[in-house]
Amino acid sequence: MSTSIQKTLTQILPVDTEGLKSAQKRLDSLTKPPGSLGRLEELARRYAAIKGINSPCISKKTVFIFAADHGIAREGVSAYPPEVTAQMVQNFLQRGAAINVLARHVGAEIQVVDIGVNFDFKNCPGLTHKKIAPGTRNMSQGPGMTRQQAEEAIRTGIELAQNSADNGSDVIASGDMGIGNTTPAAAIMSVYGNRPPRQVAGMGTGIDNTTLEKKISLLEQAIKINHPDKTDPIDVLAKVGGFEIAGIAGLILGAAVKKTPVIIDGLISGAGAIIAYKLNPLVKDYIFTSHRSREPGHEILFHLLAQPPLFDFDMRLGEGTGAVLAMSVLEASIKIYSQMATFEEAGVSSKVDF
Amino acid sequence: MSTSIQKTLTQILPVDTEGLKSAQKRLDSLTKPPGSLGRLEELARRYAAIKGINSPCISKKTVFIFAADHGIAREGVSAYPPEVTAQMVQNFLQRGAAINVLARHVGAEIQVVDIGVNFDFKNCPGLTHKKIAPGTRNMSQGPGMTRQQAEEAIRTGIELAQNSADNGSDVIASGDMGIGNTTPAAAIMSVYGNRPPRQVAGMGTGIDNTTLEKKISLLEQAIKINHPDKTDPIDVLAKVGGFEIAGIAGLILGAAVKKTPVIIDGLISGAGAIIAYKLNPLVKDYIFTSHRSREPGHEILFHLLAQPPLFDFDMRLGEGTGAVLAMSVLEASIKIYSQMATFEEAGVSSKVDF
Repeated sequence: MSTSIQKTLTQILPVDTEGLKSAQKRLDSLTKPPGSLGRLEELARRYAAIKGINSPCISKKTVFIFAADHGIAREGVSAYPPEVTAQMVQNFLQRGAAINVLARHVGAEIQVVDIGVNFDFKNCPGLTHKKIAPGTRNMSQGPGMTRQQAEEAIRTGIELAQNSADNGSDVIASGDMGIGNTTPAAAIMSVYGNRPPRQVAGMGTGIDNTTLEKKISLLEQAIKINHPDKTDPIDVLAKVGGFEIAGIAGLILGAAVKKTPVIIDGLISGAGAIIAYKLNPLVKDYIFTSHRSREPGHEILFHLLAQPPLFDFDMRLGEGTGAVLAMSVLEASIKIYSQMATFEEAGVSSKVDF
Repeated sequence: MSTSIQKTLTQILPVDTEGLKSAQKRLDSLTKPPGSLGRLEELARRYAAIKGINSPCISKKTVFIFAADHGIAREGVSAYPPEVTAQMVQNFLQRGAAINVLARHVGAEIQVVDIGVNFDFKNCPGLTHKKIAPGTRNMSQGPGMTRQQAEEAIRTGIELAQNSADNGSDVIASGDMGIGNTTPAAAIMSVYGNRPPRQVAGMGTGIDNTTLEKKISLLEQAIKINHPDKTDPIDVLAKVGGFEIAGIAGLILGAAVKKTPVIIDGLISGAGAIIAYKLNPLVKDYIFTSHRSREPGHEILFHLLAQPPLFDFDMRLGEGTGAVLAMSVLEASIKIYSQMATFEEAGVSSKVDF
């Protein structure tokens, strides 16, 4: 592993448990029965423990959309043709996609990253140009990328998160775009969930049963031919992953180093989160899950992090759409923490002693 | 039943199914796989069908907090003393409560209604004065209120919703405040869910097991002594309900007449929704559920409406806190409907034919 990634891994520190206790104490002083805001309190407690228990706030929110293509898509595993990846990148830049609408709704900035799209965007403004290759190779015939490429993609994510935190992002969200990318994400879930491809592969953007069977066979073949070594997350990522998944893994690592909460979106972000978690399990203190997608493999992530998602909206779009909705709920929880009156301030009688 | 309530019931019309189809057609033209935004699409589809499929929007949102006291609270069924109802009303007016913070976060206005608080607020500004009585009587010894009082409280809710819609509220949310009110709400759930009190009674704001046993006995006694007639929702409401529950039932009826979506909060709002639904099942077309509270009886509502909640946040505060969070998600869904680019506009290739 490159020394810069190794260095990053050693810089991640766990969240202070004293901070968690102090944050809960503040929450319990507010005019509501203790614990009565459920998961909102859990979000606020962890956010405050990470960012500081005295008047934490969220002033800047950024969602990263990592876009990349996949060699496996040429086998016809998606409901959409591969050129849609580049077309959707243009749509993001023209603000016409779902993520643009939702990010605007919650007040988040969007950073669109070409980390491996099979299209020459030239000097297209508004796009973050970090292309490592024009897509992965076909993983059903060999490794999707080289180990060097996987590490470079991780480093890209790390740097983007660190720069974003340095530029004032209080919270970061991960998103993805890549036709065919539920296939590598399912491969990672299969490897780390110890489940055969049939149990983790889903309908993606809306394939039919025949295509699902093909997807499962290709997944079986990709895992058989590549022998990904689960004790080496970078090996798994390089052989059966994708550039956007690698970028998201790096984003999570970089956010954790910078003590910046990172909200992860659906299956693809979940695959990136698993790689990050396997590189250093301490990242889980900084990860906030958002929604449970319709993809069956997603459950493996929630089990691994022991953190259920906030939403169960039957979404399966990616782009960071679930993550930005969760940003708004996280922000609501921080406002509860900072803005509510205490029992003392409001002159409200406290709980009776039983 | 009073003729004005009867008239209201006849004015409720079902949502146009053609509108639902047209709204889904619009959603399917947007740059995302069909159906891939899951429940967001369901929300947008119904909202558009109710309010008009051409550029629906949400410009004004109002949450009503109905506050009332309960005779049964004197038996010690709550973790808080009864005077907290009035104290929390003051807290709402001083903007220190959770609902104030969350309503501000989502841009909703708050209307605090004294429909039955055991405190003289005099001409306190900012409060909507609609007190019918200073709380219900102790329902474990006889009816909580008279039939006339129950009808008056329903009419109050109807009028408030209608005035609010006339004054531009695009969406209304229901909230409650009333120490002891999970007890009447559980009674209504017990009656309409055909479940014994033991299966529907919960820990409310945080009681202990001894208090829970007392609450269950009092519920059993209240139902036994009053014989609520489940074929007559106003009889049930009068005998084992509460003024805020009646106000919420009326609010839902009034919103439905005005074709205004109404988002319901937790258990107490759910009990009001059941009364409204039993008066006219068509109201369900206008009801949007928000969250599943920790109270076991809440499930009866979701089953009845055949509409699962959006959130499962383990909340149990009331006030409308879950409902206003759902307002933001509803608004997000409407923005998706109105603001996203279509495949044609964005020049994105559409789905392949299998």
